[in-house]
Amino acid sequence: MSRIFNFNAGPAALPLEVLEEVQAELLDFNNTGMSILEISHRSPAFEKVLEETKQDIKDLLNLPDDYGIFFMGGGGSLQFSCVPCNFLKEGMTAAYSDTGSFSDKAFEEAEKVGKAVKVFSSKDRGYDRVPRPEEVKLPENCAYLHITGNNTIEGTEYFAYPETGDVPLIADMSSEILSRPFPVEKFSLIYSGAQKNIGPAGVVLIIARKDYVAGRDKKLPVMMNYETILNKDSLYNTPPVFAIYIVGKVAKWLKKQGGLAAMEAVNRKKAALLYALLDKYPEFYKGRAEKASRSIMNVTFNLPSKELEAKFVEEGKQRGLGGLKGHRSVGGIRASIYNAMPLAGCEALAQFMEEFYQKNK
Amino acid sequence: MSRIFNFNAGPAALPLEVLEEVQAELLDFNNTGMSILEISHRSPAFEKVLEETKQDIKDLLNLPDDYGIFFMGGGGSLQFSCVPCNFLKEGMTAAYSDTGSFSDKAFEEAEKVGKAVKVFSSKDRGYDRVPRPEEVKLPENCAYLHITGNNTIEGTEYFAYPETGDVPLIADMSSEILSRPFPVEKFSLIYSGAQKNIGPAGVVLIIARKDYVAGRDKKLPVMMNYETILNKDSLYNTPPVFAIYIVGKVAKWLKKQGGLAAMEAVNRKKAALLYALLDKYPEFYKGRAEKASRSIMNVTFNLPSKELEAKFVEEGKQRGLGGLKGHRSVGGIRASIYNAMPLAGCEALAQFMEEFYQKNK
Repeated sequence: MSRIFNFNAGPAALPLEVLEEVQAELLDFNNTGMSILEISHRSPAFEKVLEETKQDIKDLLNLPDDYGIFFMGGGGSLQFSCVPCNFLKEGMTAAYSDTGSFSDKAFEEAEKVGKAVKVFSSKDRGYDRVPRPEEVKLPENCAYLHITGNNTIEGTEYFAYPETGDVPLIADMSSEILSRPFPVEKFSLIYSGAQKNIGPAGVVLIIARKDYVAGRDKKLPVMMNYETILNKDSLYNTPPVFAIYIVGKVAKWLKKQGGLAAMEAVNRKKAALLYALLDKYPEFYKGRAEKASRSIMNVTFNLPSKELEAKFVEEGKQRGLGGLKGHRSVGGIRASIYNAMPLAGCEALAQFMEEFYQKNK
Repeated sequence: MSRIFNFNAGPAALPLEVLEEVQAELLDFNNTGMSILEISHRSPAFEKVLEETKQDIKDLLNLPDDYGIFFMGGGGSLQFSCVPCNFLKEGMTAAYSDTGSFSDKAFEEAEKVGKAVKVFSSKDRGYDRVPRPEEVKLPENCAYLHITGNNTIEGTEYFAYPETGDVPLIADMSSEILSRPFPVEKFSLIYSGAQKNIGPAGVVLIIARKDYVAGRDKKLPVMMNYETILNKDSLYNTPPVFAIYIVGKVAKWLKKQGGLAAMEAVNRKKAALLYALLDKYPEFYKGRAEKASRSIMNVTFNLPSKELEAKFVEEGKQRGLGGLKGHRSVGGIRASIYNAMPLAGCEALAQFMEEFYQKNK
């Protein structure tokens, strides 16, 4: 069949140009006579890939020199443990802002390591919003504040970040990284599973202040020690070569699109097309997120009945709009519209939503 | 350029048929209208991939039903920590057989967790051999014995395994898994980074007795908890979808080659071609491994001088024989001849070795 518009939440759509490039060079990467899947992570050919990928991300973020970029395996969920294992010392308290299922999982991993508290939670409201910056009050001896920048399942996103003063701010940005500019210098460490905005499943991008990751406990499991992985330039062990290579291609593609400001413009436009339908027919398309917290990456809503939701997903699929089913834990509808989703995909979905409303209102 | 014979130690050669299949279906996997790189890990299309991959590996190993198969990210190095974190309890001693650089790293990670001892080491002999089974004596209250089945850097391999009685035997089989039949029922847990014999970098295959991984400590980092990952069928979080998909294709390819007995026959033939040159010109091609421990996956040797070694690597490269340089920690020459290296590659290398000897003796 021909390619669909892929609204899956992750792994998610990749730019077609990137996929075509990967396909074209899959048997012989850069005249090495080998596939990128077969190439040594210590070869000059891969070193070049790694260097360029880091530089392109640095350029996109306008990243200050006191930040380092590195890659790890194990997914965002391993990071839930890495963060407290690296930074939650005895006698300190880790603060978590609980804005969704993944925040909560991150919190649970911190509790295994030491003292952790939730300084905000929208759990009892069905995770319909993120906190306003002034709502977040930090405890004494606070090791760090952890936030989830975009809540993939719930469809909420931070557009303003809590002020933490001297307390390090750490973010899981798995589902919004490189989708728009943001004040990176507010953060001590950011981790992002690649499989939504920047690549395939299997690699995590870490952006961290170099002085923050320095001086880690030598007794940490080596693959969880941020200092070691940064100092070894992601090459302490064999990194996920192919996934990094794709992230590199996506970074180049983002530059070609005009960088993060240009991406924000188109991403906001895409989201606005869909939220317009929620605002137009609020009794039919019932948005899950409070307006101020509406994610521009994941648009979530319910229809008046489960039957209509199932019909919506099925008819969408028949029109080449795939992956619209909400996360199994919350149900409903979710349209994930990351960087690689073209405007045309959101236009097609908006048109379908209009027609579906008219037929089923 | 045309494809070379790739003797890299890992990431390493993949079967050309596998790469061609991946290339052909890269833009549209199984009529989903999506690339395998974009597909949800919870989609029926990927569930089928995962199920078939596990079943094909089970078939290849003739695996008893009381064993489970699952996949993790983070590389073999994360496993160095997972093993003691899961199984090294207070008051017990973990036993390590130290047969190479990776064994030693695994041991260091265990020492961070609890009491660990080396029950064998060939370190002071330059890691030229693995122990004979009867040489390994286990300590009291032994948590497990850990071995490295094939030593990629040093070029040695176990062909007989220590008898451990009631003590669990755990093996890192990253560099020989699925290269030949072996008595899997001797082992409680086996882990294998995929990037040598069975796939690309970025995924680890775990084969474990189900009753051995049951009952893990709930306070373990969730991504290190073998029980959770097995019980969630590798889907606790987003697994490295693409890497698992390639492992699945390699498993099908191995079945088509006739399975592990057929692979062993050709792998032994390939290794014999190269070792014959070491035996014929022992003053020129100085093998690093004792004969009884010679790996059939990594053939390692030195030439009379560093200059000759550099010349050998360079001239090999010009003849389309790539990746012959030994690991940076030991130098010399290494030919990695995993499953995907065709017999023709070893024939070409053997012929080159003969000619190189005649010109440079």
